[in-house]
Amino acid sequence: MGLFTKDIKTMNDLFVHQLRDIYYAEKQWVKALPKMAEKATDPQLKQGFLSHLKETEGHVARLEDVFKMHGVVAKAVDCPAIDGIIEEADETAGEVEDKAVLDAALINAAQAAEHYEITRYGSLIAWAKQLGRNDCASVLQKTLEEEKAADQKLTSIAESKVNLRAAS
Amino acid sequence: MGLFTKDIKTMNDLFVHQLRDIYYAEKQWVKALPKMAEKATDPQLKQGFLSHLKETEGHVARLEDVFKMHGVVAKAVDCPAIDGIIEEADETAGEVEDKAVLDAALINAAQAAEHYEITRYGSLIAWAKQLGRNDCASVLQKTLEEEKAADQKLTSIAESKVNLRAAS
Repeated sequence: MGLFTKDIKTMNDLFVHQLRDIYYAEKQWVKALPKMAEKATDPQLKQGFLSHLKETEGHVARLEDVFKMHGVVAKAVDCPAIDGIIEEADETAGEVEDKAVLDAALINAAQAAEHYEITRYGSLIAWAKQLGRNDCASVLQKTLEEEKAADQKLTSIAESKVNLRAAS
Repeated sequence: MGLFTKDIKTMNDLFVHQLRDIYYAEKQWVKALPKMAEKATDPQLKQGFLSHLKETEGHVARLEDVFKMHGVVAKAVDCPAIDGIIEEADETAGEVEDKAVLDAALINAAQAAEHYEITRYGSLIAWAKQLGRNDCASVLQKTLEEEKAADQKLTSIAESKVNLRAAS
């Protein structure tokens, strides 16, 4: 996208721009999740990050399908939001000494990324429908459901044991 | 927070760190919302940003109450996540030519910030309860409810007219 030109002229342009933004975000998330799994102490949390990594690789592949269905090149554009979320996750995790507290911080960091993705997929699905691309919307909907489930799973791990252990 | 020391040793430290992070985020959001209101074309969206600005000023004040209740200094720490979300909002908005499409982009940008805040307040409330600070949790809960309502209001403005207009 040009710095001095206004490249988004239509809803379709905005849809494609946002697809490229979330494509970048999912790819960054694929790189971040193994590091989070490595730092996690709780075995269920560690496993949760690893299984969400597999799902996230699937989200990247689904986005490539959507680009194809919509007839545009699959390319990523910088997404300062996910960069900021991951930078903050790294910074905070780096400052935590206690392992149980670190697990709580990792969950909190991961949930910020999940919520970012949930809001982006929500917009993308609404825009796809508005553009008459129900086919794209239904593929994106599958990912949205998985992001929501991942977020709920993290809340459940936090509430059932991690926060309890961290506060003890 | 030091770069070479691990300053977060307990759940309480994590709670205070996160309070300072969201305090920074809310203050940045207070600066960003008037600009978003200025860019918005739809009168209901413009008004929505301005009334959420008033609410957000209230969230800053509530955080100051929580700092006081918890006996710690009200100070902000850098929050790269909200900086990234706002940077992305500015960048994307700057690239949109059509006014109706810009409204859709502004809603999308604002929802990323709302979702960031929703996830952070969710963790803060859980941690406050774990730390036996139900008083702090109930103050934070009020803000969480307002963030969720603001997010839903944005979805409703998007779905009822903005997306329709942007795609036409």
